[in-house]
Amino acid sequence: MRQLDQAFSALADPTRREILVHLARGEANVSDIVRRFDLTQPTISSHLKVLESAGLISRRREAQLRPCNLVPERLKAVTDWLEQVQAIWEGNYKRLDALLTELKQAEKKERKK
Amino acid sequence: MRQLDQAFSALADPTRREILVHLARGEANVSDIVRRFDLTQPTISSHLKVLESAGLISRRREAQLRPCNLVPERLKAVTDWLEQVQAIWEGNYKRLDALLTELKQAEKKERKK
Repeated sequence: MRQLDQAFSALADPTRREILVHLARGEANVSDIVRRFDLTQPTISSHLKVLESAGLISRRREAQLRPCNLVPERLKAVTDWLEQVQAIWEGNYKRLDALLTELKQAEKKERKK
Repeated sequence: MRQLDQAFSALADPTRREILVHLARGEANVSDIVRRFDLTQPTISSHLKVLESAGLISRRREAQLRPCNLVPERLKAVTDWLEQVQAIWEGNYKRLDALLTELKQAEKKERKK
């Protein structure tokens, strides 16, 4: 539960979402991201910290660099939750639809009598 | 952009997510939701307000009742964004995979010489 809270909260910021889109294309160093986004290093660093705490990205230390990677499993967990809600809704919708068809047919039969 | 911010932010709370799951099963009145969740009416009302501002649910006035409904289109917009990021990641992954296969084949050829 806590993990979904953190993931959704991290995704609620447009810069953080853009960083994720950028990392979906492949690993990037913090300095690349700073250059790309035209934001200060501390701003980018704090966004990366939020994304890392939420488990949406991972960072490793490599000499002076800090390569960042997307963690697709966490992104998938978020998508799975949303798809589950949609499936419940669609299931319910289909049941309603079936019920309406049934009622209409019953009405037709009734009229024929 | 703003709509996605609000939707993700609204989804970052476990009670609000549970309310959405509940509404995915069908329309519910505020009083039903209060009864179901064992929370005070003001707490539930403030959660519903957040969900409504985010466009994830709609409420109408019907006599004394306030029936709430899930807005599947907004939920789908959120899922679409996530799936798009996953597609970029998978595309990139496949390209890397193809590149590795190519490199391995080139290496094999080299050895045969």
